[in-house]
Amino acid sequence: MVLDPPLARPLLGRLVVIGIGLIGSSILRAAGARSLAGTLVAYDAAEAVRARVGELGIADEVAATPAEAVADADIVILCVPVGAMGAAAEAIAPHLKPGAIVSDVGSVKGAVFTALRAHLPEGVHIIPGHPVAGTEYSGPDAGFATLFRNRWSILTPPEDADPDAVARLTGLWTAMGANVETMSVEHHDLVLAITSHVPHLIAYNIVGTAADLEEVTQSEVIKYSAGGFRDFTRIAASDPTMWRDVFLNNREAVLEVLGRFTEDLIALQRAIRWAEGDKLFELFTRTRAIRRSIIEIGQETAAPDFGRERG
Amino acid sequence: MVLDPPLARPLLGRLVVIGIGLIGSSILRAAGARSLAGTLVAYDAAEAVRARVGELGIADEVAATPAEAVADADIVILCVPVGAMGAAAEAIAPHLKPGAIVSDVGSVKGAVFTALRAHLPEGVHIIPGHPVAGTEYSGPDAGFATLFRNRWSILTPPEDADPDAVARLTGLWTAMGANVETMSVEHHDLVLAITSHVPHLIAYNIVGTAADLEEVTQSEVIKYSAGGFRDFTRIAASDPTMWRDVFLNNREAVLEVLGRFTEDLIALQRAIRWAEGDKLFELFTRTRAIRRSIIEIGQETAAPDFGRERG
Repeated sequence: MVLDPPLARPLLGRLVVIGIGLIGSSILRAAGARSLAGTLVAYDAAEAVRARVGELGIADEVAATPAEAVADADIVILCVPVGAMGAAAEAIAPHLKPGAIVSDVGSVKGAVFTALRAHLPEGVHIIPGHPVAGTEYSGPDAGFATLFRNRWSILTPPEDADPDAVARLTGLWTAMGANVETMSVEHHDLVLAITSHVPHLIAYNIVGTAADLEEVTQSEVIKYSAGGFRDFTRIAASDPTMWRDVFLNNREAVLEVLGRFTEDLIALQRAIRWAEGDKLFELFTRTRAIRRSIIEIGQETAAPDFGRERG
Repeated sequence: MVLDPPLARPLLGRLVVIGIGLIGSSILRAAGARSLAGTLVAYDAAEAVRARVGELGIADEVAATPAEAVADADIVILCVPVGAMGAAAEAIAPHLKPGAIVSDVGSVKGAVFTALRAHLPEGVHIIPGHPVAGTEYSGPDAGFATLFRNRWSILTPPEDADPDAVARLTGLWTAMGANVETMSVEHHDLVLAITSHVPHLIAYNIVGTAADLEEVTQSEVIKYSAGGFRDFTRIAASDPTMWRDVFLNNREAVLEVLGRFTEDLIALQRAIRWAEGDKLFELFTRTRAIRRSIIEIGQETAAPDFGRERG
């Protein structure tokens, strides 16, 4: 898995990343590796993170303030938790030049678009975005340049968005290796509720349920986790602040999908109680086909057990 | 990950494996690689599987009938689905020599012990077992010799079991690389309900819920699965017959754990509805520690995203 070679001429002048965690630092690395911007600028509210970004050498400039960061910016990408988007937008708003593009990488788009529109001035292009990529690790050291390669990056431009601005942002994501798709904020939030948010919630939940059982010790849960449980612990190790904000900000879609999940689960529970083996067998057969499709379109490895190294 | 070198002298004379799928074929391969038995005998009810085992060359003898397979057997390991254990025991019962050990690898122990005891004669040692290891693939080609290495294999001997027979079976599993633990059938079935059975059920369930959503196309679910969903599709691709039998035969423990899971999930749902961010944050922080422990005891890789190759 490698990136294409660097461009002879950058796509844009100043690319500014606000919030340098897993995603923010991966954008810096991907854009840096391919020389996508004349100047790569990083800002993080935490002084320790700014210092670490300086040490890592993944930005041309590490700004000391949001104002300094976004001065003369062509594209600004907010990579802060969804709940912090409003404050970040407020901090940069007075310092943006007209025609600048402001985007983000939040896993929720409706609430973020509302927050950005509340704070950003006329003349700035607001084009929310969401690269569907990540790992269970957090922070500036966790990022890597190929994170977005062969992954989908969703843009949710408002209906009156400037096509040229959308094209420029699309070009940036494409150059970082992503496939770009556009859709409405509402549809994004529903699609992600089923493909990401509810899966995370049930993973967090089963790990919590296991930890709370009185009759089974935590040590037993850990020892025998290879039976299936440990798969769930991976996404249940994801950043707590980010995920709290996702659930608080995509409430309606999450509750809708969760309601269906629970309804289906209770039907399975009933099938088990009444020994309706055919119902179980029918579902267990149907679900295999979906994994095959995910492997076929190159979004998953076919190696057994994710090909993981065995301790 | 390698096995220890072959033994100079086998641990036992005839080791018989009945049912040659992922687990059965892995036992043949592990025992073969280390010369653990004088003669390795395989039997499967399906003629095509018997032929394939012959082609693979992983057994010294491929028996044509259960009677032929278990004649003069020292240890017989039943590797058929839990619901087929009774019939398998019935088929071999008249042909076992006194003092033979009959074990199994089923993911449920209470129902299996009852089924074996109903069919096997006095003088045969019944010692149910369960290696907590596997992949999402099935069949004789899916097995490999190191599957049990550094995994736990649970034995559930009855209280009046012959200590010498338990020691011989323990020795066999240890020689295949497993760590052996003994516990009661009841405790096993509860531990596995939380570490394996309910995780599989909720994985199957979320994949089914996703497939049934009207507002989100199946193609969207597949495209954006990297957001978390695809992790669940792995175990939801496991063998349908095996898993149907698990749920039908470990009903009580599964319903008990499932009840707690649902209760906890409804509490989370309520926390989302009422925007109780602190409750979400507290759980999401607590669950991280469990993954760290699983990695620390060598049951999981620390590599991001399971270290999987990215398509």
